[in-house]
Amino acid sequence: MQNPVTVEVTRGDYVESRHRGMAVVVDGAGKTVFSVGDVAAPVFPRSACKAMQALPLVESGAADAFGLTQRELALACSSHSGEEDHVATAAGMLAKAGRDLGALECGAHWSGHEKILIRQARTLDAPTALHNNCSGKHCGFICTCVHAGKNHAGYVHYDHPLQAEIRAVMEGLTEAKLGPDLCGTDGCSIPTYALPLQALAHGFAKMATGMSLSTTRAKASKRLMEACMAEPFFVAGTDRACTKAMQIAPGKIFAKTGAEGVFVAALPEQGLAMAVKCEDGATRAAECMIFSLLARFFEPESEASARLSALANRTMKNWNGVPVGVTRATEAFVRGAGAPLN
Amino acid sequence: MQNPVTVEVTRGDYVESRHRGMAVVVDGAGKTVFSVGDVAAPVFPRSACKAMQALPLVESGAADAFGLTQRELALACSSHSGEEDHVATAAGMLAKAGRDLGALECGAHWSGHEKILIRQARTLDAPTALHNNCSGKHCGFICTCVHAGKNHAGYVHYDHPLQAEIRAVMEGLTEAKLGPDLCGTDGCSIPTYALPLQALAHGFAKMATGMSLSTTRAKASKRLMEACMAEPFFVAGTDRACTKAMQIAPGKIFAKTGAEGVFVAALPEQGLAMAVKCEDGATRAAECMIFSLLARFFEPESEASARLSALANRTMKNWNGVPVGVTRATEAFVRGAGAPLN
Repeated sequence: MQNPVTVEVTRGDYVESRHRGMAVVVDGAGKTVFSVGDVAAPVFPRSACKAMQALPLVESGAADAFGLTQRELALACSSHSGEEDHVATAAGMLAKAGRDLGALECGAHWSGHEKILIRQARTLDAPTALHNNCSGKHCGFICTCVHAGKNHAGYVHYDHPLQAEIRAVMEGLTEAKLGPDLCGTDGCSIPTYALPLQALAHGFAKMATGMSLSTTRAKASKRLMEACMAEPFFVAGTDRACTKAMQIAPGKIFAKTGAEGVFVAALPEQGLAMAVKCEDGATRAAECMIFSLLARFFEPESEASARLSALANRTMKNWNGVPVGVTRATEAFVRGAGAPLN
Repeated sequence: MQNPVTVEVTRGDYVESRHRGMAVVVDGAGKTVFSVGDVAAPVFPRSACKAMQALPLVESGAADAFGLTQRELALACSSHSGEEDHVATAAGMLAKAGRDLGALECGAHWSGHEKILIRQARTLDAPTALHNNCSGKHCGFICTCVHAGKNHAGYVHYDHPLQAEIRAVMEGLTEAKLGPDLCGTDGCSIPTYALPLQALAHGFAKMATGMSLSTTRAKASKRLMEACMAEPFFVAGTDRACTKAMQIAPGKIFAKTGAEGVFVAALPEQGLAMAVKCEDGATRAAECMIFSLLARFFEPESEASARLSALANRTMKNWNGVPVGVTRATEAFVRGAGAPLN
């Protein structure tokens, strides 16, 4: 199946670049309410599924035992920018578990966001594992292991009990079979499993509604999503798409990006969740798609709809501030509403 | 016409992202020797055509009048990383013309390359127009205007005599009609004109061979390409694709990148030039395509071929240095050799 062009980037009046993609919106029962492209093809969710991976932290009682705050739970679901507050919060989580950054197995990297990188360059000799965008998730992993009395060494490996538990949680949510066949290694060294975009969206719709979940899992899902929506800065950071989406309609939008053009979002009050993947892995296209989709679930004249549409369809300016083109969702994408899955 | 998938990015054993693209190799007479995708569709060449835009600087006698060095001519054709030597060389060009950075109309930006940005952040309060990746080209423009006794103010605008001259030069080289219809504004504020990828490649094949050019233009073309090949650091910078390509086979490869997934190269000894465009604008795919194409024009067992292939097909490592996947040219792209234009 051919994925359609969903996002165009213009220069002057001419389309300069085109992105193809897939997108799907489902309800808690798994019913598709919008679909574009091949949403049955396996896709690596990458960091978009971090809230799923954080469920053992809450379900096991570790979050309560260590008294984790909303900010710390949000950080456990985050791909943060490595700002001071992110780093301090991650260090605090480790301290609560009696560990320090030596326990982290995610590796270190400078922030990928210009303003933050400039600040880091002026204040740090080098970044540590706490600055890794995944450090909050890894701190959550370590808290989970410590609380369970398990050795956390090697917690990033496929065969570690924690990864087996996460695999089982994700299989339960997505109803996809996860195993070594469609398994890759993520940027932070943990396993990532390719699964259909539709299954990924359905898993988040279950988390947003509690449908088909045990009481424990439904409560833990609600708690994590509410933490993210309450503390959106700790899910991403300054000027980041996830943070902006959740600030536009507080408590009504959950949003999480992943590498290589993946983005998921949920609308808990509406009982829906959505997932998009840009075929070529471009973040700009994934953001355009998810903001476009989110906008259509708010009243057409509402401020939320207008702000989401403005984030989806953006004017690009050059180094002199002169508008040179736009990034916009295509007609084919906008018309996709309710399109059958064929 | 549907552009084929030319580059794949894998994670584990699975393809995570796909890039579509176009590519063409032509000789000085305009004969196509390799073609993939819709190479007749108009494409903005962006910075890939800087060597064409620098021709008036040489043809007018300005380069000789100001005693411009090989480095300065290379910088006039560059998209540099904003390293100290680039900035100093740009400032030197302006000084030779009796101007300073106040004359530059390109705007300012931090380096887009992490290592350089970190150094800039530690040594600068803010970047100036000299740090703009296009500053060398703009210094060349100002030298051209000053030498001709023209007012350089507004030299970035479509109606300025310099841009009219550049338009005429590019029309002569590419045999494409350039005008306001397919005109956009580039990142540095000058006009950029969409033209067929095949025409772009043909223009560079003419520059590399001198075919169908006046003696003056043929000499100026040779001088600029030789300056770039002699001083590849001044065409891009540390760890950059253009620089590495030209260092692999000194004097045998000219290479120049452009934004939104464009890349051109020439093989002067072989009388060929090539141009690629990634449909979605990704630099990683453009680099894979141009390195793959360049490799096939060297002996299969040669060091140059091996090094070019290694740059085309790259292993990606995560933050712990663990290999997680590859970026590679597809079979469809590799087989494209001599494919008809259908």
